[in-house]
Amino acid sequence: MKLYSYFRSSAAYRVRIALNLKGIAYETVPVHLMKDGGQQLMADYRSLNPTALVPTLVDDDLAVGQSMAILEYLEETHPQPPLLPGDAKGRARVRAIAQTIACDIHPLNNLRVLKYLKHQMGVDEEAKNTWYRHWIQEGLTAVEALLADSDQTGRYCHGDQPGLADLCLVPQLFNARRFGCDESGFPTIVRIDAACAELTAFQQAAPAAQPDSEA
Amino acid sequence: MKLYSYFRSSAAYRVRIALNLKGIAYETVPVHLMKDGGQQLMADYRSLNPTALVPTLVDDDLAVGQSMAILEYLEETHPQPPLLPGDAKGRARVRAIAQTIACDIHPLNNLRVLKYLKHQMGVDEEAKNTWYRHWIQEGLTAVEALLADSDQTGRYCHGDQPGLADLCLVPQLFNARRFGCDESGFPTIVRIDAACAELTAFQQAAPAAQPDSEA
Repeated sequence: MKLYSYFRSSAAYRVRIALNLKGIAYETVPVHLMKDGGQQLMADYRSLNPTALVPTLVDDDLAVGQSMAILEYLEETHPQPPLLPGDAKGRARVRAIAQTIACDIHPLNNLRVLKYLKHQMGVDEEAKNTWYRHWIQEGLTAVEALLADSDQTGRYCHGDQPGLADLCLVPQLFNARRFGCDESGFPTIVRIDAACAELTAFQQAAPAAQPDSEA
Repeated sequence: MKLYSYFRSSAAYRVRIALNLKGIAYETVPVHLMKDGGQQLMADYRSLNPTALVPTLVDDDLAVGQSMAILEYLEETHPQPPLLPGDAKGRARVRAIAQTIACDIHPLNNLRVLKYLKHQMGVDEEAKNTWYRHWIQEGLTAVEALLADSDQTGRYCHGDQPGLADLCLVPQLFNARRFGCDESGFPTIVRIDAACAELTAFQQAAPAAQPDSEA
């Protein structure tokens, strides 16, 4: 498999964790989101992935974008170890936590959105960072409630095996820290993030461990 | 099942289509996103769904938010008729189209985001509408390419049965029309939307057909 990735993209970071957890060998193809005006916007990348976003997974004749679609594909084609629990209600819970991050936080803080705020709307740096932190605060407050109020939460977001919710949470907390968000309201999230940080699969997926890292 | 819904919420609209396609009886519990300062923000709704967003599906002891998690849950618990194709690569394609809408368009145009732009950033009505149309234009351009460039597209987004991508696409096009977006670049999308409009499951899920409609 080939993963078109950018070291700091949290959507690519999710997929890298999943590939590592499942022990799937893959080749990283770096796509630099800033260089050349954004390599993801170039015609050859667009022909592979018309959304002009990273990541894209290539597996034989399949080229698929959208990290959440990629993660479900990896789960279906490489079921062990599972990223989702065995029961439908548990899977619904895990997917809802994951999508609170993937739908309610991440899309609002994506590079293209920050660029629009700056260049099309003339929003200054401070207001842009306030926006960034606002959606993280809103989203992680919901995630913290979903985690703290459930006896299904264990060492990780759902029980004692890392899975789909964890691999969305860790990259989001990484971004929260980059932008200096206040973590004091999220004790469960911080505890789970620390548990994930002990795992090689998460360590090797981190931005600083990527071949295209600039850290 | 109970669906906490708002007639004009496109995330709730997706779930209503799925429930209808699968012939699942459900009760609508209206949550008015404007009345009382937003009923989704009230403590009793938040205790059901900490994200304070609609929809929420309640099925026995399960209360789950996030439309894409709900749709996967319905697919797993009521597999017929399927919303996803039988092969993993086909499912990846359909989920990627669906999530281009659910992750790349919808979250940016959600009510809470438009309110933030207006009240926190002081963005005027015209700039807000330009923002709205911009993300629809970007996202539907990608969806059109994904549909037009594939021989897997049929009467609907994937083959000749309506599914997960269609039930995300139709509510998004409904929103695009509400905001006067230019559809001329999206012939495949417009054709598929018209095919869906002939189906009772889609007709009965439309905002104007809901018990809380104000149309």
